[in-house]
Amino acid sequence: FKIAVLPGDGIGTEIVPEAQKVLKAVAKRFKHEFAFTEALVGGAAIDEVGVPLPEETLALCKDSDAVLLGAIGGPKWDNLPAALRPEAAALLALRKELGLYANLRPAYLFPELVHASSLKPDIIEGVDLLVVRELTGGLYFGEKRREKLLGGERAIDVLEYSTYEIERIVRLACEAARKRRKKVTSVDKANVLESSRLWREVANRVALEYPDVEFSHMYVDNCAMQLIRNPRQFDVIVTENMFGDILTDEASMLTGSLGMLPSASIGGKVGMYEPSHGSAPDIAGQGKANPLATILSAAMMLRYSFDLEQEALAVEQAVREVLAEGYRTPDITEPDQKLVNTREMGDLV
Amino acid sequence: FKIAVLPGDGIGTEIVPEAQKVLKAVAKRFKHEFAFTEALVGGAAIDEVGVPLPEETLALCKDSDAVLLGAIGGPKWDNLPAALRPEAAALLALRKELGLYANLRPAYLFPELVHASSLKPDIIEGVDLLVVRELTGGLYFGEKRREKLLGGERAIDVLEYSTYEIERIVRLACEAARKRRKKVTSVDKANVLESSRLWREVANRVALEYPDVEFSHMYVDNCAMQLIRNPRQFDVIVTENMFGDILTDEASMLTGSLGMLPSASIGGKVGMYEPSHGSAPDIAGQGKANPLATILSAAMMLRYSFDLEQEALAVEQAVREVLAEGYRTPDITEPDQKLVNTREMGDLV
Ligand SMILES: CC(C)[C@H](C(=O)O)[C@@H](O)C(=O)O
Ligand SMILES: CC(C)[C@H](C(=O)O)[C@@H](O)C(=O)O
Repeated sequence: FKIAVLPGDGIGTEIVPEAQKVLKAVAKRFKHEFAFTEALVGGAAIDEVGVPLPEETLALCKDSDAVLLGAIGGPKWDNLPAALRPEAAALLALRKELGLYANLRPAYLFPELVHASSLKPDIIEGVDLLVVRELTGGLYFGEKRREKLLGGERAIDVLEYSTYEIERIVRLACEAARKRRKKVTSVDKANVLESSRLWREVANRVALEYPDVEFSHMYVDNCAMQLIRNPRQFDVIVTENMFGDILTDEASMLTGSLGMLPSASIGGKVGMYEPSHGSAPDIAGQGKANPLATILSAAMMLRYSFDLEQEALAVEQAVREVLAEGYRTPDITEPDQKLVNTREMGDLV
Repeated sequence: FKIAVLPGDGIGTEIVPEAQKVLKAVAKRFKHEFAFTEALVGGAAIDEVGVPLPEETLALCKDSDAVLLGAIGGPKWDNLPAALRPEAAALLALRKELGLYANLRPAYLFPELVHASSLKPDIIEGVDLLVVRELTGGLYFGEKRREKLLGGERAIDVLEYSTYEIERIVRLACEAARKRRKKVTSVDKANVLESSRLWREVANRVALEYPDVEFSHMYVDNCAMQLIRNPRQFDVIVTENMFGDILTDEASMLTGSLGMLPSASIGGKVGMYEPSHGSAPDIAGQGKANPLATILSAAMMLRYSFDLEQEALAVEQAVREVLAEGYRTPDITEPDQKLVNTREMGDLV
């Protein structure tokens, strides 16, 4: 398998090598071959070649079987004009160009880390949910423009969804639910938005194809409440791009350990895998970063891009064992645990 | 002062009379005259006259000094077509017609209720924030339409903001912050949306008029995280309509007692005041509803519509004392507290 490796910025260059280390161990143990090719992205690419997503990087990704991404952005590039800002410019282009219409973000509570959450243990114990976010439609990719007004301006963003886009993402969520607890909550704002009303109609139609899956609807504002009030009620949540952006970040906080949460962006020929957290410039270069989210993202790559379920499970099991043995990076450490650095954590897994 | 009273549906008809009781006590103690006129809204109006917002109700509201609203909607009317659904049809029309461009929703933790939250006490102790939500613009009121496509449809919602709309809401947030801890966090998605980029530019300009207010920006996804991670960092949050819808509901969950949270919608000639919670059909008619959110909304009416600050403080103080004495409605009860019903709670305040 050909893997494009895009470490990016900040702690990206520290955590990505640890995930590669784990993939190499998998290759050895299970007799696979992974060919890694590194490329520039984000601020690092701006510094080297002036743009956040160089053409060679995009070409490499298209020509690979999967992309392993670290993190993008940092204060150094925060004042660039919108079109050059590394997070948006590089990420949105990669998603669109690779046809990655589905972003899968699990929020899973490792029992060992129950105290890392700001929520009470009895609320979050057993939380294991998956948010399936539509990733190439909606407000992100609709027309944007400005108009002059007398004494000011008007800015406009268009939110669009078509039957086809809704169908494929809801179907993907139902398929994912079949491998889990068979429950899908579709989140929209159908009491206000026309796009949500279409979303609901199409979702209801798709749900008929999955009689074994319990399918329900929830308004986005209520979902933002329910995630805090009773997160265990959720199995799979499926929603549009902007709602998904907000809800995945909220859901990630439930477990209190952003350093543990992987993500997969799929739907095209090539999948892209990255930790849910950002480039954490405040701790970059100090060996403090937690590589587990990236390692777990590599496990998702094994599962979704290479169809290597056993191998994925082996990686996830290794992570659980390392935690059970008491090893912790600084972000998830507690008294009486064994504090390790980024590289040691990678070695242990 | 002329007050239009719209009890609406579900527990609305139980909690609104308790707030009126408190306003009458204020009138007596402070020598004011409040003239109450009741009118139909929501499902109750659909049942009586076939529409969720009868013309006479709207006319009454326009002709009053303030509106006291209970709650709107319920399962009985959930399957009506969008244009008739009571929540959206009545509320959105009232907001637009009365020019209520600012929705103020405080999330304040009563120390007595610290255990009602699903967040840990050390995270939420001392939380006292105010979300200022833009209420008459954005996706809610932009053009909506459908187009036929080959083999499907496309649905479109337009998100629009003009300089003028942003200016007035940011200014209102800065004024509110001046009476509090002098800190404003403006929430947007300027890395993706053109309307957010305009929002940020205008907000920066308005902020210059308030050198005594600490002004900063935050992306909406990050804000959804930070509300859970460290809610005490916030004083006033100002944001656009849809983000505000999501974030106010999330913030309301921090305190764990939705039954305590008031809201004010202002900006026009007439302000509208209502609890943050809904019509709670599951407990309607049983005397179990907590009237304190509505009573605290009446306090906001005294403050914002009638400029009666002393009177508002007296009501808020009365609520605190009743809680300190251990009286609780079922939603906020704990062992060893004195359980009271809706009417008893109103009497106590
Ligand atoms: C950086 C930004 C454009 C991006 C998004 O909004 O999709 C990020 O928040 C994410 O969730 O991956
Ligand atoms: C009922 C609905 C239209 C409304 C909104 O989205 O504004 C409600 O959620 C609110 O927050 O008052």
